[in-house]
Amino acid sequence: MKYESISFTDKFSKFSDHWAPRVIAEMNDYQFKLVKIKGEFVWHDHKDTDEVFLVVSGDMEIEFRDGKVKISEGEMFVVKKGLEHRPVAHDECSVLLIEPRGVVNTGEADSSLKAENDKWI
Amino acid sequence: MKYESISFTDKFSKFSDHWAPRVIAEMNDYQFKLVKIKGEFVWHDHKDTDEVFLVVSGDMEIEFRDGKVKISEGEMFVVKKGLEHRPVAHDECSVLLIEPRGVVNTGEADSSLKAENDKWI
Repeated sequence: MKYESISFTDKFSKFSDHWAPRVIAEMNDYQFKLVKIKGEFVWHDHKDTDEVFLVVSGDMEIEFRDGKVKISEGEMFVVKKGLEHRPVAHDECSVLLIEPRGVVNTGEADSSLKAENDKWI
Repeated sequence: MKYESISFTDKFSKFSDHWAPRVIAEMNDYQFKLVKIKGEFVWHDHKDTDEVFLVVSGDMEIEFRDGKVKISEGEMFVVKKGLEHRPVAHDECSVLLIEPRGVVNTGEADSSLKAENDKWI
């Protein structure tokens, strides 16, 4: 089919590991990435860009040094450029990330959770 | 609250008119806009940018000169830069649009459906 929509349910069914974003689409030089998260990520920031979290199912929190935000299904949040944050999910949560192509999931933090970049599904 | 998520359900409850996008968030120089659509829009394109349609509830179609795509709840589609398209919804459909700040809904088309730009909710 020449024109085909992208289904989050379909794409999420294709992987099960946590903290490893898969690219599903590009808009100009921005990427749309799906990720399943569970547990606590590493503290990090992105010096050069804002980052969007849009929760597709489940709920998550993002901790900041001076507070936190809960994001549930059907909600989004923009982490501003340079703001230190740590994503956390008590139970598995499915998230759509939107950010410029090339952004590394762990920012400049040194962590075993650093994922392969630009991995399409 | 210092950090607060953005709920699509909450934002959609605040307006009822069709084809009039409301900005709910910005990521760098991109805007996230909610819009309710019903009926047929005008043929147009956006010369300088791709445009993302993410369907929050209902379903819609985007017609192209050589085909069309159906986008249902939980699906997204990227209309590439310069591609002529016409959004259509038989029943009311609630959509998240993502595109650079300043993009006009009707592109360069002359239409009564041209909406106020940069209208926040």
